[in-house]
Amino acid sequence: MEVIESHKNTTTIFPMRKIVYYVATSIDGFISGPNGDISTFVGEGSGLTKYQADLKEYDTVIMGKNTYEFGYQFGLKPGQRAYQHMTHYIFSNQLMLENPDPKVHVYPVELEKILEIKNGSGTDIYLCGGGEFAGWLLDNDLVDVLKVKLNPIVLGEGTRLFGHSQKRLKLELLDSEQFENGLQIITYSIIKPGK
Amino acid sequence: MEVIESHKNTTTIFPMRKIVYYVATSIDGFISGPNGDISTFVGEGSGLTKYQADLKEYDTVIMGKNTYEFGYQFGLKPGQRAYQHMTHYIFSNQLMLENPDPKVHVYPVELEKILEIKNGSGTDIYLCGGGEFAGWLLDNDLVDVLKVKLNPIVLGEGTRLFGHSQKRLKLELLDSEQFENGLQIITYSIIKPGK
Repeated sequence: MEVIESHKNTTTIFPMRKIVYYVATSIDGFISGPNGDISTFVGEGSGLTKYQADLKEYDTVIMGKNTYEFGYQFGLKPGQRAYQHMTHYIFSNQLMLENPDPKVHVYPVELEKILEIKNGSGTDIYLCGGGEFAGWLLDNDLVDVLKVKLNPIVLGEGTRLFGHSQKRLKLELLDSEQFENGLQIITYSIIKPGK
Repeated sequence: MEVIESHKNTTTIFPMRKIVYYVATSIDGFISGPNGDISTFVGEGSGLTKYQADLKEYDTVIMGKNTYEFGYQFGLKPGQRAYQHMTHYIFSNQLMLENPDPKVHVYPVELEKILEIKNGSGTDIYLCGGGEFAGWLLDNDLVDVLKVKLNPIVLGEGTRLFGHSQKRLKLELLDSEQFENGLQIITYSIIKPGK
């Protein structure tokens, strides 16, 4: 799909922004253990450096309420940006932020705003989490790329990659890289229905 | 751990046989969809050729009842070997086989026989599945190596890699290879408690 935008008397054709779910997983498909426990995930090394560098490519991040509030454990104050160079869209029907940063926006969990962001201009969109929000997007065929930081761990229980979604998908493997501490970053394009 | 065996007046020291869980998984950690559906797993190409070649290295296979009976869908007759060159040990408290092949044995799901096989002589042991049997072995610290055929699919539901086990593990990444059709074969050594 393409969007045509008129700008300064020229017409530019650019592809719709992709939603990229870039997330750490265990081998058994969990993005965290019970109660958000991520203590056994790889926390340092060349793979994390690569991930941090990749994040610089995104000017926009979308996430659910739990993921945003998860940042509070690491010093984030309500209303602040989690990623300084990104515009934040937090999708929640409950979250209320007083005097948020001008680049932090809260919207109800509805497709309209997601589609507006996706159809707008800018870089690809970083989907930060969590599992339930990603599953909801997936159920609506709105996730384009899956980048898993595959950790050399098994968790056995916790929050699943796509929450409670039961959607079945085929993907195209685009890239797989190995890093320190047994971490791999594997990139897939999600094949949309009918393609 | 090592085992010392006296044989023809010489003493040979050899390492205990490893149990190698070599299994196809989805990105979200399932080894099959609902009702054993494996229709979206990669069914051909260089990765499967590699897997078939690797199986030649094992003289012994262990599995649960469901995994053995799963072969019936593909023409296996009750009592036959699923892998011609391997001795089969099927662990089940229910399965009854009439006049099985001399290389097909059924034992109750108890540790004693597993340990006897593991402490015996022979190649490493191919753990064929299924998830619940693998989870039971894992809970007893008896799985040594995990080789996942990581398929470019998401299943959303089905049989989990280690069934209902909730054991947490750290693993060491030993090898990761890419093959046709987006399949990867990733080999991990399971780090045992206290190591």
